[in-house]
Amino acid sequence: MNMDIFLTAEQIKRHAEFQDFAASNVEPFAYKWDRAQQIPDSAVSQLGAAGYLGANIPCEFGGRGWDVVTFGLLHEALGRSDSAFTGILTVQSMISAALLKWGTAEQRGKWLGPLAKGEIIGAFALTEPGTGSDLQSMATEFRRNDRTGGLVLNGEKKWISNGQKAGVFLVFGMLDRQPLACLVPRESDGFEIEPIDNMLGFRAAGLARLRFHEVPIPATNIVGKPGFALSHIAPIGLQYGRISTACSALGLLRACFEESTRYAASRKVSGQNLGDIGMIQSLIANMGTNLEAAKLLCWNACRAEDDHLPETFTTSMIAKYFASRAAVQAASDAVQIHGASGCHESSPVARFYRGAKITEIIEGTTQVHEFILGKTFVHNAIGDQRRQRPNPGV
Amino acid sequence: MNMDIFLTAEQIKRHAEFQDFAASNVEPFAYKWDRAQQIPDSAVSQLGAAGYLGANIPCEFGGRGWDVVTFGLLHEALGRSDSAFTGILTVQSMISAALLKWGTAEQRGKWLGPLAKGEIIGAFALTEPGTGSDLQSMATEFRRNDRTGGLVLNGEKKWISNGQKAGVFLVFGMLDRQPLACLVPRESDGFEIEPIDNMLGFRAAGLARLRFHEVPIPATNIVGKPGFALSHIAPIGLQYGRISTACSALGLLRACFEESTRYAASRKVSGQNLGDIGMIQSLIANMGTNLEAAKLLCWNACRAEDDHLPETFTTSMIAKYFASRAAVQAASDAVQIHGASGCHESSPVARFYRGAKITEIIEGTTQVHEFILGKTFVHNAIGDQRRQRPNPGV
Amino acid sequence: MNMDIFLTAEQIKRHAEFQDFAASNVEPFAYKWDRAQQIPDSAVSQLGAAGYLGANIPCEFGGRGWDVVTFGLLHEALGRSDSAFTGILTVQSMISAALLKWGTAEQRGKWLGPLAKGEIIGAFALTEPGTGSDLQSMATEFRRNDRTGGLVLNGEKKWISNGQKAGVFLVFGMLDRQPLACLVPRESDGFEIEPIDNMLGFRAAGLARLRFHEVPIPATNIVGKPGFALSHIAPIGLQYGRISTACSALGLLRACFEESTRYAASRKVSGQNLGDIGMIQSLIANMGTNLEAAKLLCWNACRAEDDHLPETFTTSMIAKYFASRAAVQAASDAVQIHGASGCHESSPVARFYRGAKITEIIEGTTQVHEFILGKTFVHNAIGDQRRQRPNPGV
Amino acid sequence: MNMDIFLTAEQIKRHAEFQDFAASNVEPFAYKWDRAQQIPDSAVSQLGAAGYLGANIPCEFGGRGWDVVTFGLLHEALGRSDSAFTGILTVQSMISAALLKWGTAEQRGKWLGPLAKGEIIGAFALTEPGTGSDLQSMATEFRRNDRTGGLVLNGEKKWISNGQKAGVFLVFGMLDRQPLACLVPRESDGFEIEPIDNMLGFRAAGLARLRFHEVPIPATNIVGKPGFALSHIAPIGLQYGRISTACSALGLLRACFEESTRYAASRKVSGQNLGDIGMIQSLIANMGTNLEAAKLLCWNACRAEDDHLPETFTTSMIAKYFASRAAVQAASDAVQIHGASGCHESSPVARFYRGAKITEIIEGTTQVHEFILGKTFVHNAIGDQRRQRPNPGV
Repeated sequence: MNMDIFLTAEQIKRHAEFQDFAASNVEPFAYKWDRAQQIPDSAVSQLGAAGYLGANIPCEFGGRGWDVVTFGLLHEALGRSDSAFTGILTVQSMISAALLKWGTAEQRGKWLGPLAKGEIIGAFALTEPGTGSDLQSMATEFRRNDRTGGLVLNGEKKWISNGQKAGVFLVFGMLDRQPLACLVPRESDGFEIEPIDNMLGFRAAGLARLRFHEVPIPATNIVGKPGFALSHIAPIGLQYGRISTACSALGLLRACFEESTRYAASRKVSGQNLGDIGMIQSLIANMGTNLEAAKLLCWNACRAEDDHLPETFTTSMIAKYFASRAAVQAASDAVQIHGASGCHESSPVARFYRGAKITEIIEGTTQVHEFILGKTFVHNAIGDQRRQRPNPGV
Repeated sequence: MNMDIFLTAEQIKRHAEFQDFAASNVEPFAYKWDRAQQIPDSAVSQLGAAGYLGANIPCEFGGRGWDVVTFGLLHEALGRSDSAFTGILTVQSMISAALLKWGTAEQRGKWLGPLAKGEIIGAFALTEPGTGSDLQSMATEFRRNDRTGGLVLNGEKKWISNGQKAGVFLVFGMLDRQPLACLVPRESDGFEIEPIDNMLGFRAAGLARLRFHEVPIPATNIVGKPGFALSHIAPIGLQYGRISTACSALGLLRACFEESTRYAASRKVSGQNLGDIGMIQSLIANMGTNLEAAKLLCWNACRAEDDHLPETFTTSMIAKYFASRAAVQAASDAVQIHGASGCHESSPVARFYRGAKITEIIEGTTQVHEFILGKTFVHNAIGDQRRQRPNPGV
Repeated sequence: MNMDIFLTAEQIKRHAEFQDFAASNVEPFAYKWDRAQQIPDSAVSQLGAAGYLGANIPCEFGGRGWDVVTFGLLHEALGRSDSAFTGILTVQSMISAALLKWGTAEQRGKWLGPLAKGEIIGAFALTEPGTGSDLQSMATEFRRNDRTGGLVLNGEKKWISNGQKAGVFLVFGMLDRQPLACLVPRESDGFEIEPIDNMLGFRAAGLARLRFHEVPIPATNIVGKPGFALSHIAPIGLQYGRISTACSALGLLRACFEESTRYAASRKVSGQNLGDIGMIQSLIANMGTNLEAAKLLCWNACRAEDDHLPETFTTSMIAKYFASRAAVQAASDAVQIHGASGCHESSPVARFYRGAKITEIIEGTTQVHEFILGKTFVHNAIGDQRRQRPNPGV
Repeated sequence: MNMDIFLTAEQIKRHAEFQDFAASNVEPFAYKWDRAQQIPDSAVSQLGAAGYLGANIPCEFGGRGWDVVTFGLLHEALGRSDSAFTGILTVQSMISAALLKWGTAEQRGKWLGPLAKGEIIGAFALTEPGTGSDLQSMATEFRRNDRTGGLVLNGEKKWISNGQKAGVFLVFGMLDRQPLACLVPRESDGFEIEPIDNMLGFRAAGLARLRFHEVPIPATNIVGKPGFALSHIAPIGLQYGRISTACSALGLLRACFEESTRYAASRKVSGQNLGDIGMIQSLIANMGTNLEAAKLLCWNACRAEDDHLPETFTTSMIAKYFASRAAVQAASDAVQIHGASGCHESSPVARFYRGAKITEIIEGTTQVHEFILGKTFVHNAIGDQRRQRPNPGV
């Protein structure tokens, strides 16, 4: 379709490159990785070698310095093949974006290069076993160590993507009741990483449960000021997380659409083409229309971020909310179109069905999005009323 | 919201002008016109005076010669206030677009100027009592009159918007089993126009039933060649009809959103703000998200038409299919948000509820769109498979 | 379909009688009444003569003393033809059920007979302009008149069905901050009734706005004790209101189904039967399935009420919530199936489309139902956990 | 809830027994079986020992001879714990019902006893790799063997539930272009069984691919007459398959409801009970309402079968169509309510999410149900029109 209206020639060229990469290096292995619940290090290395892990990191730090639209196209192209694989990029961008904005010069100098090249994998350790979206009630705690001038960390994190592979973790906790973020290397004393297997989808995303027992943190690993972590640092990461997830869900939606139309074009039922059956046409018309809408919402959100527009938060919420739900619907319909063969894991649509659901949960559930978007829209209406011209109704 | 990303400064300025026009000249009267099932001639004159009836007609013929995006913005702004009023523009553009492309120099010279200035209102007489979307089975017939060198017209048309006011009708019928289109002035002998009142929505759109009894048609009023009418002339008009309807439905969707958020922002229920109730937030989040998606789909379809892209037909189908269904959903939810007061015609949402449904019927029902889009998407997949690179899956 | 499994022979016979009544006395006039926004007194008299206005009133008071299932069947049969007409019965049953349970012997003796025979029409005056479902914040006030030993009533009510025709009103207000209900005859001094015209649907239901200015109420017209009105009296009426509305919505759903299948069976499109088109089959399959489900939920709710089961409140909420939403969906789909002709008021489906929406608002909106049902189901789960056997999961 | 209105005391007692069985013998192992893709023989033996595998087989053949309602309650109770396990019963009933009706006295004497006691497991071998719902195009072939007086079987079947464990298969194929069904014991020469692992859901249901290479069939194993198999024998089995699947999906729907309400009752988010959040209440209200509707539709379908009503086919289609879609929706919402923890396989809702989808595919996809139900409803409308009384509309 005509996404080229909103994309530059350069962006279109890059997208083709990303698609080629996915076709060669991801698509043929997605089934295997899902079954193994593991992405081999060699595949991650390819991602690093292509420069994709540094997509959003400026060139001066060894990254590609791409605009956010290009960053979104990368996630779309990889998300078409494997959501779990794309998750590595999502998290890498979350930690690097946070460091880029709030890290000290030293931290940026030390970590961004290796993150950009994929020499080290990062993780974003925010969620805890009991909290979910309720960040204010974190139980993870930092304590000052007056002797060393650093901190000591105790607590637990859960559902941490990349956790199995990450070399460095951006960990959020409370210091004297103030939220704080610190970098914690994998090899730190008292830091235990337990893989989480058997996820419904994103099975190869390397989720882990983290346990911190008196983990020593040097002062140089503190990112930003105390009191700052949830209001300034986490939002940067979450914004990248939302955009990545939206674009990855968009790729998954395209995957459902392409597999479904291809199947409908070739499969015969009672001598009739599957694609000539009204019920199937309805499912496909709806799927293709949502794909087009989700695409525009995603590029729009990426552009808003590129242009530092005030609505960037709302547009990324909208894109994630729409694309993830559309992906779930599309995957469900794709299984229906494929029939029994879509219920077997050898068909990609079975994997899409499991994976799509995850996109409705991570980086804020659909219900959390409804709460925040609903509040925002009503709040904006109050503002509109104040600004309103005397003549009503427009 | 940030629609300015995709619009030029000129287009944004025009949109503000259209909104001002709607606020002054349409919004305050929409309720009254709906009740009266009539738009006064003075209101149509204002539309003509503003040049809006010639939005899509080149300057050389006295029109404004605006691009299709600006044309869409006009329909959005007016559709925010009154769908029925916007319908006048829709139909005017359908007949003028068809004439512009397929009319003779003489026809263009004679009709486009008056159409542009609103000195004459046009109607597009395609649908018949028994046919609906099934154009091939038209029963209206042209017959050659060897004596005059012209034609004689017999038959019936139904659900013809603008029919009550139109001075000239583009009538489709069969001549020797070949589809043909002719211009038929209102005052022609044997031409009877019966108003259709009591529509569910679009009540002021001036629908009519047309009856032709031995109506003489001079040869100079034939538009295009015989055999051409359904394959070349009607599609031009229907393409404008689809884009207009999509953008008008978008305006209606925005109307529902603005009325709902405003109401939710001010109304208290059991001491709680309506906008703080979860069920209401869900409805509003969904409405606002669909509004953003519909907006992008509409501007995208307008641009595709402006740029003469091959996908212009599909993108206009997608925009109409999405925007009309979203408008119906939004209107239904807007009534829920307003409660009992939304069930009274003094609330605009009651009118929106009736009007939105019409957008799912006119210019092709939702089901016809599913049939055509489903077919198109599956057909494209066959093409994709042929072009496909050896490495599958992308 | 096989509703006879759950109905007695007697109930089935009555249903046939109700259907015959509707076919003769309601169906042929529904369009006219809707247009006129008025049901003629003669039609109400027929309802009274048939004994239907006393369906739920015991024989000893001159009513029919039917069980609640039969009462539901009556609403279903009439709702098939005209929701607004059925509304008269709904309200009559609300006030008579409340009087039957909480009225004094004198009040029952005086009012139930005339209500049963239709000599007087009743109205249930609970809703106020600013409140909606939030009953606790009523502003209508009773004041003691020490001189007469009676009360004085001031305040306003809105959206009161039957208000235009009613001879007696059960009015709810506050006396010394305690909710109280009183009977107020139409001819009371200071009681002003303003018709509410131009409703979206239920246009012939005779809605009114009521204004009370120092209206004297004799002590004999007080129903129940102060403090009792919202906790004991209103719920009886609302329970009948919910059941009636659910069954009336069920009738409307059946109407959509019958009109749609009949139309699909006879209409040809491009030489194909409309009923052979996949998209239409999907709509009809869904409509017919919801009809069957709604039917069972309604009879189930009626039976629970007949058997005084503890779950009677929840089952009536479920029936109303499901049937009203299914009716709205069915009416929307019925318009799609009928195309342009369904958008004209001469087609019953246009009226159904407007009327169905009202069933989602009256007697508690869909959103209020979600709030109460959600709370109830979660609350029951807590109880289940307490009662739970050691072995989990069942 | 009040399902006791439609059930006898005996049926309610049995249901409690079934629930106890499921709580002790199924629920605690469902996760393990799903992971292992295997149900141990000991568990199947327990099913046999309880007499459940002979639920629908008359006592004279060693079965329990239960009515279809009780049969449905059994599937509901087990489906609450494990859909895959319940699948064993589904298939056992399909083959035994077919034999009971169409088997010779000898066949019934030989097979029904062992099937009833679970000494042998049966499978229903109808679906082929290329066909799906299109039974008429079966490629499996029987050939007469004049030497032995028996038949020879060649062909392939796919997606055959119980295939991994079954001792006897009811195989459908063509003999001289006429459909025929034969019993084929597992140990037959030339009969190869290949397990199908890695299903999306129903992973422990023991699916298999069957290959027949010149398999000799003795004449005594032919069930019914040639030409009879698809019109008379398969429908009996499929009717039991539909009812079983509907009731099993109902159990799954209850499982989602119980897990969700329990979780919402105990989980806190930002100091608020999850069950007090509007978005969650909406999901739960809808889930509980659909549960009630599905329950009534299922018992209604079972009763229609018990009473040999003409509408038994339609009611079972309706029950399966509604219950399976409601289960899919409920499972999706249950994951949302559980958040991240619902995306891990240790939560039953992850398994429900995968399993529910299968119920929309097996025994006829949702789309096939829409096709047949749509056709049936329109066809009935034609009949209604013919029978119609002069006075229209009822």
